[in-house]
Parts: sequence; structure tokens; C-alpha cells
Amino acid sequence: MILQLDPANAVPLYRQIRDQIRQLITSGALAVGDRLPPSRELAQRLGVHRTTVANAYADLTADGWIAGHVGRGTFVAESPQAAKPVHPESRAAGRGTAHPSYTATLENGYLWSTLFADQPADDPLDFLMADVTAAADRRVISFTTARPADELFPVEEFRRATSDVVRRDGRTLLQLGPSDGYPPLKEFLRQELAREGIQAGDRELLITNGCQQALDLVRKVFLRPGDNVLLENPVYPGAIQTFNGGGVRCLGVPVTEKGVNLEALETLLNQQRVRLLLLTPSFHNPTGTTLSLDARKRVLELAARHQVPVVEDNIYSALRLRGRELPPLKALDTHGLVVHLDSFSKVCFPGLRVGWLVASEPVIERLRVAKQATDLHTDQLAQAALAEFCRRGLLTKLIKRARTLYRGRLERLEAALAAHFPEGVTWTRPEGGMSLWVTLPAGLDAGALLYKARERQVLFAPGRFFYFQGTQPNTLRLSFPCVKEKQIEQGIEVLGGLIKSELRQRRPAERETRRRARVALV
Amino acid sequence: MILQLDPANAVPLYRQIRDQIRQLITSGALAVGDRLPPSRELAQRLGVHRTTVANAYADLTADGWIAGHVGRGTFVAESPQAAKPVHPESRAAGRGTAHPSYTATLENGYLWSTLFADQPADDPLDFLMADVTAAADRRVISFTTARPADELFPVEEFRRATSDVVRRDGRTLLQLGPSDGYPPLKEFLRQELAREGIQAGDRELLITNGCQQALDLVRKVFLRPGDNVLLENPVYPGAIQTFNGGGVRCLGVPVTEKGVNLEALETLLNQQRVRLLLLTPSFHNPTGTTLSLDARKRVLELAARHQVPVVEDNIYSALRLRGRELPPLKALDTHGLVVHLDSFSKVCFPGLRVGWLVASEPVIERLRVAKQATDLHTDQLAQAALAEFCRRGLLTKLIKRARTLYRGRLERLEAALAAHFPEGVTWTRPEGGMSLWVTLPAGLDAGALLYKARERQVLFAPGRFFYFQGTQPNTLRLSFPCVKEKQIEQGIEVLGGLIKSELRQRRPAERETRRRARVALV
Repeated sequence: MILQLDPANAVPLYRQIRDQIRQLITSGALAVGDRLPPSRELAQRLGVHRTTVANAYADLTADGWIAGHVGRGTFVAESPQAAKPVHPESRAAGRGTAHPSYTATLENGYLWSTLFADQPADDPLDFLMADVTAAADRRVISFTTARPADELFPVEEFRRATSDVVRRDGRTLLQLGPSDGYPPLKEFLRQELAREGIQAGDRELLITNGCQQALDLVRKVFLRPGDNVLLENPVYPGAIQTFNGGGVRCLGVPVTEKGVNLEALETLLNQQRVRLLLLTPSFHNPTGTTLSLDARKRVLELAARHQVPVVEDNIYSALRLRGRELPPLKALDTHGLVVHLDSFSKVCFPGLRVGWLVASEPVIERLRVAKQATDLHTDQLAQAALAEFCRRGLLTKLIKRARTLYRGRLERLEAALAAHFPEGVTWTRPEGGMSLWVTLPAGLDAGALLYKARERQVLFAPGRFFYFQGTQPNTLRLSFPCVKEKQIEQGIEVLGGLIKSELRQRRPAERETRRRARVALV
Repeated sequence: MILQLDPANAVPLYRQIRDQIRQLITSGALAVGDRLPPSRELAQRLGVHRTTVANAYADLTADGWIAGHVGRGTFVAESPQAAKPVHPESRAAGRGTAHPSYTATLENGYLWSTLFADQPADDPLDFLMADVTAAADRRVISFTTARPADELFPVEEFRRATSDVVRRDGRTLLQLGPSDGYPPLKEFLRQELAREGIQAGDRELLITNGCQQALDLVRKVFLRPGDNVLLENPVYPGAIQTFNGGGVRCLGVPVTEKGVNLEALETLLNQQRVRLLLLTPSFHNPTGTTLSLDARKRVLELAARHQVPVVEDNIYSALRLRGRELPPLKALDTHGLVVHLDSFSKVCFPGLRVGWLVASEPVIERLRVAKQATDLHTDQLAQAALAEFCRRGLLTKLIKRARTLYRGRLERLEAALAAHFPEGVTWTRPEGGMSLWVTLPAGLDAGALLYKARERQVLFAPGRFFYFQGTQPNTLRLSFPCVKEKQIEQGIEVLGGLIKSELRQRRPAERETRRRARVALV
């Protein structure tokens, strides 16, 4: 069974798989009783996540094209016409009814798709997270994930800090705690915030499970179906996952080399009723761009004029690698309109899932109540361990070492790009953070490039994962903190070679197109 | 300024406060320029949460009755008529407009209420969580929260387990991890589940931040606006917080002494299209009741016939204090319809926020993706520490000790109730868990009782927190694990005395009513 997926196509991958298998059945290439490969196996073969294949199989089963038998496998069904069509897009058909055949398919776990609230989408976040496993393979050179380099983690010092804080405060931190966070951690963070120019009272600070949960809480408190939210486009896929859907409409503001495009932002604010604006002013993910001080002030003026709360994702800001420090939006926020998000996940230990939110007291109070209904509070062991780790000055030391290491890797990456990437490819020049954004010549497809690069054991994040509209398939993100310098050189050389060969193949085709176009125009 | 709140009234407390202050202003009892008490102070005086008062003040400010001045306080405004009325219930008025007076109020943080997605409700979960602080005061006898007794926590053994696991696996667990959970913890849980009769593959198990997050994820995956969900009524307030609202309709199934009423359940399933059924078959919170084996089988038959997934909250089931063990619904689930929730929070350390979900693979896959979009994954330090703690057999030991301690406290509570509560008061007879449900004679109000009991330093959870419809104000929950036996005796004696005195005062009034009624009928 041979399937050809087009990752740049707007049709979700699971539908491409579904439609091609249906095509193979109707064309007779797959006969009744033929066994389909297990979803895990097919997923591996196609280089997609297993869920994608499972979703395709679920649709085909619901429509009667294939049937699963527990312990035996999945087969082309006797007669798709005979089966009652229960296409998940008409989900209501599966609801509340008591048809015996439904029970049968439900036992196989297939009809579940009709019981879920919505249809699955391809999940870029899943791709980026799944890469965690791939990156553990030392032969693979992965520019995919924006994570800290764990070779720097002072594990033994962390262990001692954890052990001491459990000895001192164990009974309290093992018991249910306050929903706004572990007091000593809040105290430490308030001091740190003050050093960044943010005066936050205890009731203006809420501990979260990292920035991802902060986004989820912001959505719960601020957005209803029908609301518009402005995001940079491209943007962190976790923000798309959180905000896009459930009737909320994401409007994209394009990003220039100097960060979000202010003219486009103003135009959108004038044209649309906007409920919320989400920005990453420092070292924006995925582009690595940064807003100047003037641009920051302008954003705040626009937000105040339009009465739009601004959610500031500050997660990368401690990782300035060159250039002058800039104040976060929250430090300039005279109107109290900024909801400031930050986290430990880029500077030390993402495995602990601890972040924080700073905003006006009424906002934090609502977020706190939402947090409580979501999971009561953030794990106190992680909060206490981090508080003690920071109190001992270990975070400051770690950040210093990380900046030096990442600066070296960024410079090495830029040198390799200049050496190996052909003319016509451009990239951003980040002042910090973890990623750099590459634009290939128009017409090239980073998705197709990834398929070939994967065969050569080189991985990166194709740009399409970061767009929620107007996808530019010729873009890609390279994250550098976890790639050793020698591997950076090797990986970029491989990618450069692939791009060059792509350009060579493309030229005759382009000439062909131009020739034919000319003919047709005559 | 004297306000009289009626906690049993269906009008939310913040609206009672708002309306009474408005009344005081229009009646002239409060004059222009009069200073209102700070919200924190008023909250304390009224025995409500500070948010409740803050919400009342926000409404009054938005409507122009009062005005806040940063650093000075809140005052009765010059002329409420002159101020532009921006009542939060007509929230749209505050949106996207750029009126200068809005900016002014926004700077004071007040107009935020018009920027939130919905209006605040009184928050029972908040009451129960806030009690954490009150319970720390040794003079207070608190039957309020259903938490484990931390005097049993083997802190030093936990510390050693944590320290060892960080030494062994620190670098991995501090880095970003798999969204479905830390593998050694999953492995341990699968063995435990097998001993309870639940065979769960690795892909049928997802780690969550406790049961509260499991509920949140279930809502995200299964429910859309317009959907119906069946819950026991009364029920755990966290479930009400999660499911009620956002267009989802909660339908209540009454609870008898033998757990959820099966006839009512069947009737509702026949009458309504139900998307989801949430049940706590063992030691239901708040009533402490348990479903028999036959009733469990019947629930599963009904669910299969109506194709309704059943969410089984198993959180108390390890805490059987007497009677015979019963299998969880999931162990009887031949149709694969049960979504099984459990957590460490009732048997060991709620401060760590670790729980789990067991369900069919397609369901877990969807929940996993939702979990990832919510907070990537659960903190790995807590997962690893718990896995090691359990692997050493320390959890088994702790549960054994907890059962003995709680059994003694439950028996002492029952003896005290029999000794001190007057005739006409009834209570459930739990076989395990953490709570017992008391029904006062009709007409008595547990909310009013709590006001008086608080003066005597005795706390409990009034029944109204656990109802989402048809509130029975004469009910209350007593949780016993954290109350020492001597305090149980004292606390129940105080409550018994207050109830008796309430009954004595009530009798003349009742006679009066009856007399008047008789007159009126003539």
C-alpha cells in the first residue's frame, strides 16, 4: 500500500491518508479482506504521528470501508455500502441512539470519534513534543525543539536544594496548598520582577504550570465564542492550539525583521473588535525577532486607546545573547493593561512545569479562580525545589553559563548558514532566545525538504507548524541551544546541499512552466 | 455600614452585597463622599471571600455608585446618574470602544469586570480551599476539607526517595518529558490497576495533575455548548465548576443512601440526549454513599444501551474503612465505555498534584493531546518522587495506617453524632472515604448554622456548596480524617447544641405560622 502525503497541502494529513486509502479500495488496489498495516507501523513509514493514522482509520471504519477486529487487525470491509454510514462529520448520528452495530464498533474503540466534541486536527505541538524522543538518538542532528541544553543542568546541586527544602518544609508542601502558589517562590519572583522594573504585589502574581497553562487560563477568563484575538503570525504552535477553535477567531499580525508589524496591528485594531492581543516582544518564537523600545511604547498606546488587554509572553527574555537589554511591556504598563507571562522552562528545568502570571489584582483574582477549577494549584514540590534552587543563586549562575553556550552556538549557526546555504535563502538575526527563522526561495517547500533531511538524520521544524493562516511553506525554524557546534556545522551542510539540489531540479521545471505558459498565452 | 447576607438565598452573595450598598446609598444611609470599608476588611466582617466583596464593588463602580481612588480608598460617588452606566451584565458596552472615562476606571483596575468572558459566581471550591488556612489554626475545629491527615506523612522517607530518584534520573526528569507521563510511574500504576482488575495498556493510561485536571480534560474532549451531562446532585464542587457553564447543561441525578438513584438515572437517560455521565461509585463526595455490585452492573448496562461514556471518579476507593471490597466500574467495563479517574491526593500527598486517567486507547489519545495543549505534561519531579515512594512499598504502608486512623475517627464521629445531635437529624453511614452527610430537620439552614458555629471556632461545609440545582439548605458535610478524636467530640457537641437551640427558637415561630395559617384558612 503506497500513500503519498503532501505536508504543505492545507488538507489535514489524516484526511489525505483517509482519502487515499478510500481511493485504493474503490480502484481495486486494495481488495475485500486485505489487511491494513497497523496504525503505528504506517505512521512510522509515513513519518507522521500515530494519531494521524488512527484518525484516518477511525473515519474509514465509521464509514464502513474498513473494520477492526480486536487482536487480529484492520481489514478492508465486505461492502462499504452495506454498512451504515456514520461519518464523524455528521456526529449527531452517533449520539444517544442505541443501534447494536454502534456497540460493536464502540467495543473496538472506533466509534469514539463520533463521541468527541470536535474533529482532530493535525497537531504541530505533538510533532515538536514527539521530537523529544528523536533528539535522544545521538545520531540525529535535531534543530527542532526550543529547549534548554540539559548538559548544563547542575543536577547534584538541584538534588541538594530539593532534599533540604523537603526536610525543612515537607509536611506543608506535601499537603494541599494555596491556589496562587507556594509563598517562598512568590516572594523570590517578586524580587526578581522588581529588578526587571515590574513592581508586583503578592495579589498580582499567580504561579502556573508553565506558560502553556497560563495561555489556557487566559483563554478561559477572557474569551468567549465569537471573540477575536490578535496573534503574531507565525507564532508558537501552543498558542494556536489554545486560542484557535471553540468559536474564537485568531487574526494574524505579520512579523517583520523588527518584530510584529505595527501598521498591520493598528489597522486590525481599527477594523475589528479585538478582545485580546498576544505578543512576544523579546526573541519571538519562531522568528527570533525583537521589538524596539519605541515599538513597545507604541503597542501600549494602541492597546490603551482600544482598551485591549495585552498578553506579553516573556518566556525567552532572560536569554539575551547580544545587544542592549530592553524593558518588558509590563515595566512600561502605566494603564495596567498588560498580562505578563513567564516561566522557568527556557532558563532551567522544563520538566518541572512552573511558570507565572503578573497582572492587575482583579485579573489575577479571576485567573486564580480559573486555575483552581483547572487543577487546584501547581505542584508544590517543584515550586519549593525551584524556590530553594533560586535562593541559592544557582539559577543566576546557570543562566550566565547558558547565555555563553547559546551565543557560541548561534554564532556557529550563522557562520554555517553563510557558508552552506545558497543565494536566495534568507534568515533572521536574533539578539537572543533559541531560534532563528529561515526563508527559502519562493516555491521551495520546507515540508518536502524535511522528508529528505530526515533520511539524512537531520531534523528541523517546518514553518507551516507556526502559521494559523496564510502559511508560507518556504519557511522553517532552526533552534540551536541543544545542538553541539560540530553537529551544527554538519547539519547545516546537509540542509544546504539538499536545498541546492532542490533548486537545481527546480530550474528546468521552472523553465518548462515558463515555456508552456508562454505557449498558452500566445 | 451594616449588611445582612443570606447564604441560603439563591442570589449570589456578591449581588446581595451590591444591592444592599446601593440601597444604603439611595436611602441616604450612605452619603456622597462616605468611605467604604476596604474589600478585605468587609469580607472578613461578613465571613465571605474577598473576591465576593471585590466583585460587588466592581459592579457598583461600573454603574457609577462608588469610585475608587488609588491609595486613598473607595468612596460613594458624587452623582451616580452622571456616570455613564456600564453595567457588566451589558458587557458589550465596554468592548473595543475608546472612551476616556473607561481608561480612567481601568487604571483603577475596576473596569476589568467588563473585559472578562463571564460574570463571577460564588465559588464553593474557593471556600473549601480557603479553609486550608483556617484549619492551620489549632484553636479551630474544622470538618470542612476532605484531605488526608498529614500527621501520617512519612516526610523523611519521602525525602530519601526523592533524593535518590533525582540522583539516578535527574537530567532526564528535569528536561521536557512525554505528555502521557513519566514511564516508571505509568509502569507502577499499570501493575496496581491490574490488581484492581483493570488491565490497562501503556496507551490506555494518562498522567494528569490530579482528578481536577482530569475533569477539565474530559470536558475539553467530550463537551460542546448545548451538550447535557449527568452528575450526581449533590456532587463534588470541583465537578460543578468544571462542567456547569460554557453552554453545557448539568442534569442532576439524586443520591439515595445507596448511592445514585438508578431509576432517576434511567428516566433521565430515556428523556434526554446525554453526552456524558459522571459518577463516584465508591464513597461518593459529599454523601459518603457507595453503589452495590448489582447497581454498578446496572449503570454499565444503561450506559451501553444509551451509548454514553461513564466517567468514574475513583479517588476515594482505596479508603475502604469497613464492609466488603467492590470492583471499580472500569473492571466491569466490557464495552470500553468507562473513563476511569484516580489520584494520589486522597491517599498521600495532595500538594504534589498527580493523578491518572484510564480509558480506551482512542480516548486516551484525545485526552493526551488536550493535556499537551493545556500544560505539555505533568511535573516530572513529583511523578518520579511518587514512583520511587510507591516502588519502595511506602504508599501501601501509608494507606494501611490511614485506614486505621480514619476508621477510628469515623466511629468516634458517629458516636458523637448519636450522643449530641437531636432527634430529627439524620446522617449517612459511609463504608469509607472522608465524609459523612448530615440532613437537619426541614426548615433549618446549615448556612445560618455555620455563621453561629464559626463564632464557636467550629467549621464544616454547608450542603449548598454541593448542589447545582434543587439546593437543600438543611444539609451539611462533615469530613473527619483531619480532626483529632477529642476535637471531634467537642466540635459535634457544639454543633448539636446550636441545632437544638435553633429548633427551640423555631418552634414558637412554627406555631405562630400554623396559627396564622389556620386563621387565614377560615
